[in-house]
Amino acid sequence: MVNIAVLGYGTVGSGVVEVLRTNQESINRRAGQEINLKYVLDLRDFPGDPVEEILVHDYNTILNDDDVRIVVEVMGGVNPAYQFVKDALLKGKSVCTSNKELVAKHGAELLEIAKNNKINFLFEASVGGGIPIIRPLNQSLTADEIVEISGILNGTTNYILTKMSKEGLAFDAVLKEAQELGYAERNPEADVEGYDACRKIAILSSLACGHQVDYEDIYTEGITKITDIDFKYADKLGVTIKLIGSSRKVEGGFAAMVAPKMISKEHPLAGVNGVMNAIFVKGNVLGDVMFYGAGAGKLPTASAVVSDVVDAVKHMGTNIMTIWNTRKAELVDIKNVSTRFFVRIKGSMNEKLDKANAVFKGKAVTVDGLDGEFGYVTAPMTEKDYSSAAAEFNGIISMIRYEG
Amino acid sequence: MVNIAVLGYGTVGSGVVEVLRTNQESINRRAGQEINLKYVLDLRDFPGDPVEEILVHDYNTILNDDDVRIVVEVMGGVNPAYQFVKDALLKGKSVCTSNKELVAKHGAELLEIAKNNKINFLFEASVGGGIPIIRPLNQSLTADEIVEISGILNGTTNYILTKMSKEGLAFDAVLKEAQELGYAERNPEADVEGYDACRKIAILSSLACGHQVDYEDIYTEGITKITDIDFKYADKLGVTIKLIGSSRKVEGGFAAMVAPKMISKEHPLAGVNGVMNAIFVKGNVLGDVMFYGAGAGKLPTASAVVSDVVDAVKHMGTNIMTIWNTRKAELVDIKNVSTRFFVRIKGSMNEKLDKANAVFKGKAVTVDGLDGEFGYVTAPMTEKDYSSAAAEFNGIISMIRYEG
Repeated sequence: MVNIAVLGYGTVGSGVVEVLRTNQESINRRAGQEINLKYVLDLRDFPGDPVEEILVHDYNTILNDDDVRIVVEVMGGVNPAYQFVKDALLKGKSVCTSNKELVAKHGAELLEIAKNNKINFLFEASVGGGIPIIRPLNQSLTADEIVEISGILNGTTNYILTKMSKEGLAFDAVLKEAQELGYAERNPEADVEGYDACRKIAILSSLACGHQVDYEDIYTEGITKITDIDFKYADKLGVTIKLIGSSRKVEGGFAAMVAPKMISKEHPLAGVNGVMNAIFVKGNVLGDVMFYGAGAGKLPTASAVVSDVVDAVKHMGTNIMTIWNTRKAELVDIKNVSTRFFVRIKGSMNEKLDKANAVFKGKAVTVDGLDGEFGYVTAPMTEKDYSSAAAEFNGIISMIRYEG
Repeated sequence: MVNIAVLGYGTVGSGVVEVLRTNQESINRRAGQEINLKYVLDLRDFPGDPVEEILVHDYNTILNDDDVRIVVEVMGGVNPAYQFVKDALLKGKSVCTSNKELVAKHGAELLEIAKNNKINFLFEASVGGGIPIIRPLNQSLTADEIVEISGILNGTTNYILTKMSKEGLAFDAVLKEAQELGYAERNPEADVEGYDACRKIAILSSLACGHQVDYEDIYTEGITKITDIDFKYADKLGVTIKLIGSSRKVEGGFAAMVAPKMISKEHPLAGVNGVMNAIFVKGNVLGDVMFYGAGAGKLPTASAVVSDVVDAVKHMGTNIMTIWNTRKAELVDIKNVSTRFFVRIKGSMNEKLDKANAVFKGKAVTVDGLDGEFGYVTAPMTEKDYSSAAAEFNGIISMIRYEG
């Protein structure tokens, strides 16, 4: 029998308890022994709840109980989660967490402590909710050098963009509806500004390159400036607009970014709609694979956490190798990365097309009934060259990176 | 340093050698030690080839060399692969294979030998080529009871159906083109009759239920009877036609089947086109996940084989638990399984609709310009009830199972 403790009885924490109860028999069979939930830590009381009798308010009860071999951290936030997790690892307890901030910020250090103590620090649920991605990256794609990871990593923004795309609605209207349905927070900044996706692509980038990628170093742009008019151009161009977190091997290292992008309707990520998430991985010998599923939600996330608990039980006394060290990865400055750009240009094509062709070397696109402007897809150019060209070009309304 | 031997220097075997050379450094880092290719077994000679000096013709050289700790079997076919693999395992050598026939037929027995000898029998490449699916099923989805696995498991048939769907062509014309392009064998039976998909869903079903599912017990129907007219009805119904291998938990156990199905265009499998494969899995707490990628091909398949080699090196001396025992799984007789059916009915709706409504209790569908027949989607009914009703109903041209 292995005793475990759950830190935090919120949405994911109560999901973990529910999953452990619902699938008790098969989980124990998979783990090879019985998993016993000994404590749940929360500051609150839950009178009448099944966990009432194992609820504790003081973390030291768990930390100092040598019978507890695995700690499940599902509180979220960096503090006090970081100290709790670090203390548990230093005491020789394995830790499974769903906490993306914690993993993005301190993953490398916590992995090192786990390695030194022959225990495990596992975080499958920190990216993509229920989608198996961390373990596949770490244990399945081991024959490959990863050359690209691109993902739809945030369900809220994907719901909003899908709805805008299918129903021709404006951003604000869809955000309001998403908030009413509970798909978006009342303060939606972390989602719509891309911060949530940024932490997740930081974790995936670190695993792809083996070194610490700081999320502060990743260029991040949200979806608040995407309009219904952009989707009209997208339709005409045979592309769709998705918020993509990506990390690509380019000359000199990895280039990472979170930004809305126009992607071909034939791309596997293009069909990922609503609150679903997906992570697309390109290996140098494997080619393209994609992992798809619910990127959030109580039970899917809890399922991923519990799969980590099973793995921790199976690997009691051995560290599962994870290549992610504390050395800081040198990301390539995105100013030097090339891509194509879709721009909306104010004015008439008659007047401005020649100049656009001279500067951007691409092709124009028009949408019926849309007067006083036209669209333009540039030739591939560096972000730096685009910025200087756009600054000089009179009348650029907006820009979306284009990978059609 | 770990010495390995590769059995068979055909497409996958030469791919394995290429992957080991191309990514030597990162593979050794992932494995934690150097992997050395000591022998390649093939009956043929390869003068001038890089493997010339390590080529052997007699399997006993490998079997009796105690330095060889891992054997990679990529010869295909059950004989002599089965004997070779069994002998290797009995000698305490781990085995990694891409051989779906071998795994489908003898997987449970070979896993048991591996377990008893504290070594490993790994077969990631036997289903879905480069797509990580065996390891995720076995090690990631451990918190769930699997309630459904459905997959597009054969690239040749998916290429044919995609082409028929997009270009309105007939089966024979597309098959011929696929043969010319090398996407289909000159003798295409194993693919187009669904036998290849059947072996793969047998393996996945065994892993889902933990017991031996014999592929001979799985109802299998190919795509040779699918016509361009079926796709016209599909378009009208907002569905597409895919060859689906599926295994579902129903009352009384698992129901497994390979058959062309009309599936909703919104289903994640509907967007999987051309030679790509995908496996959709539903867990009782996780919900839906899908794994997508190249289901065949030299390097993707070799990548999966080499990832198994890395895993075997990392788990030297320990058996990775795989729940699949030799006890035969009792599949539910599909006669008792319910679904909807799409049928083409010869004759005029005026004459036959009342009878169709009375017997099939569903709804009719017509396609402009298609005279002398109409389509009909039945209410959900068991296969048995459908068969009796169809036998009595005069003028059924063809039937496709419908999950729109």
